[in-house]
Amino acid sequence: MAPKGLKHICTMACGSCSNENAFKAIYIWYRTKERGGSVDFTQEDIDSCMVNQAPGCPSYSLLSFHGAFHGRTMGCLATTHSKPIHKMDIPSLDWPIARFPLYKYPLEEHVRENQEEDRRCLEQVEELIHKYNSLGKPVAGIVVEPIQSEGGDNHASPHFFQQLQQIGKRTGAALLIDEVQTGGGPTGKIWCHEHFDLPEAPDIVTFSKKMLTGGYFCKEEFRPPQGYRIYNTWMGDPSKVLMLKEVVNVINRDRLLDNVNETGDVLYKGLATLEQRFPQHIDSLRGRNRGTYIAFDGNTGAKRDAIIGKLKQQGVHTGGCGDKTLRLRPALIFQPHHAHIFLDKLETVLTGL
Amino acid sequence: MAPKGLKHICTMACGSCSNENAFKAIYIWYRTKERGGSVDFTQEDIDSCMVNQAPGCPSYSLLSFHGAFHGRTMGCLATTHSKPIHKMDIPSLDWPIARFPLYKYPLEEHVRENQEEDRRCLEQVEELIHKYNSLGKPVAGIVVEPIQSEGGDNHASPHFFQQLQQIGKRTGAALLIDEVQTGGGPTGKIWCHEHFDLPEAPDIVTFSKKMLTGGYFCKEEFRPPQGYRIYNTWMGDPSKVLMLKEVVNVINRDRLLDNVNETGDVLYKGLATLEQRFPQHIDSLRGRNRGTYIAFDGNTGAKRDAIIGKLKQQGVHTGGCGDKTLRLRPALIFQPHHAHIFLDKLETVLTGL
Repeated sequence: MAPKGLKHICTMACGSCSNENAFKAIYIWYRTKERGGSVDFTQEDIDSCMVNQAPGCPSYSLLSFHGAFHGRTMGCLATTHSKPIHKMDIPSLDWPIARFPLYKYPLEEHVRENQEEDRRCLEQVEELIHKYNSLGKPVAGIVVEPIQSEGGDNHASPHFFQQLQQIGKRTGAALLIDEVQTGGGPTGKIWCHEHFDLPEAPDIVTFSKKMLTGGYFCKEEFRPPQGYRIYNTWMGDPSKVLMLKEVVNVINRDRLLDNVNETGDVLYKGLATLEQRFPQHIDSLRGRNRGTYIAFDGNTGAKRDAIIGKLKQQGVHTGGCGDKTLRLRPALIFQPHHAHIFLDKLETVLTGL
Repeated sequence: MAPKGLKHICTMACGSCSNENAFKAIYIWYRTKERGGSVDFTQEDIDSCMVNQAPGCPSYSLLSFHGAFHGRTMGCLATTHSKPIHKMDIPSLDWPIARFPLYKYPLEEHVRENQEEDRRCLEQVEELIHKYNSLGKPVAGIVVEPIQSEGGDNHASPHFFQQLQQIGKRTGAALLIDEVQTGGGPTGKIWCHEHFDLPEAPDIVTFSKKMLTGGYFCKEEFRPPQGYRIYNTWMGDPSKVLMLKEVVNVINRDRLLDNVNETGDVLYKGLATLEQRFPQHIDSLRGRNRGTYIAFDGNTGAKRDAIIGKLKQQGVHTGGCGDKTLRLRPALIFQPHHAHIFLDKLETVLTGL
């Protein structure tokens, strides 16, 4: 299951802990670089860290994106910007937040505008990193979802992610790709970032949800040089790893990624037809290549909610994300004939609106 | 299992997440008080929280204690001050940190000094709360272990905890008792804070470890007024709750708390004899009433480490905490005859030093 180029793993009990500990791995890596690779701490480091002060506890920041969701514990919440109800009344940190591309659909009709959107967002990322570096809040890492899920199934191009990786390399910031929601197969590959053709692996990839247990894969230099710096009573849950092993066996035995791609084709084509027939109700159909990780918008949030409600009356459970998006998250065993049943029910709902 | 007076529960997957989410419950409670009980957010709240700024993300703080351990995620780490290796290189927050009592042992020979120690520490708690309130970092809660475990098995008196609760009431700060390590029976009661005779329940009690799953018990007013403010994909793990149910059945069926108290008596008396015989090696024997949650110090850290190492050669696994403390953490099924075997091996080790 390990993403190509990432040979090290650390397991954790949930998605938030996975990101929290991956963030720590980034800070430790960044600080070790600043120490010129030395693993020795000064007495000032030791004394100051015990009372939450620099230099022991440096004022590092992480760059995240508007619309992002990376979890609900304090560090994760500082990088989460999808809905006010998640963040309200919880203390946070002044960390840089960049715009994530918001594309116009269909993509083939808006190539130039969307390229321009990539350019604007990437420019802001680099500006913010320089700004926070000079503010004394060095940006140790860039934290990004391969598809902003909770925030509205917002996609960005492979070019965007390739350039993001380059910006990280130029500015000395690590690239963390949060695959908590996207990992495990629903995009038609085990890891969504495999679709991006990155010239090398991202530095850290976090996972949970479909993977049954949480954790992260990372490059060797993101393993802390001392023990007990990243640690937890249970370090994940071995019983969940055993269950995951069997899930992986079934994914391979039943060729479930092929099934996801075949079902995704049926779903996407059927939805494209419905989008053309009902432009007064739905638009902005989008997905990642041939997977079932597909979404479309209602023309308004109320319209989206009405579609979800009426589908439920038809016995179909779907979910909302962002302001007006309906997201599909079928299991890996969802097959073409299930897709046809869903499309039939959705057609009934759209016709009746 | 619910502590007296705490009828509400929220389950989480690990100890850090338990504390992180209990902290959130405190912030939300504190802010709701500031809003005069209103559950409406202003547009300014909504807009500012999405970019990590006040008033939506207020600059609340939590008061914690030197020597404390409350976990390893960002919010928890800001209240953890037990060892530099846990905190080094991880960004933190300027939150108030008070002294936790460090008693002289045996307690009966140092009554007046230890009362004075309580008074000094409590005075600092109240001073720090007033200071941070006036600095614009209002102290929303006091976070404390009933026994500082990782920090060295540091005990404080029932009087100290009773007064801490009163300070919280006077200053409007919630009292969170972190029973992640102490909860589940090893002190001879299910919850260590039951030993403190508090006039009313603490506001929140967190748990994990021996409880098999994580979470917190709380008063009704610490339930957020809206849904999805404290939430997690799995909200703990139902399979662990089923296992815990059976653990509780066995604790009751086999009267394991009685066993802990009987075994604790044997252990403590035997250790008191060894402490008198070997004052050149060990001192400061301490425990909570009759439980097995007992510790003593080596005269130096090196002496403590030598004792742990030689016990291991005898087939006995013990642990270190703090600078020079050896802590005992037997399972609830550790019986008087096991205690005698342990005492015999320890006598051999101390004799051979």
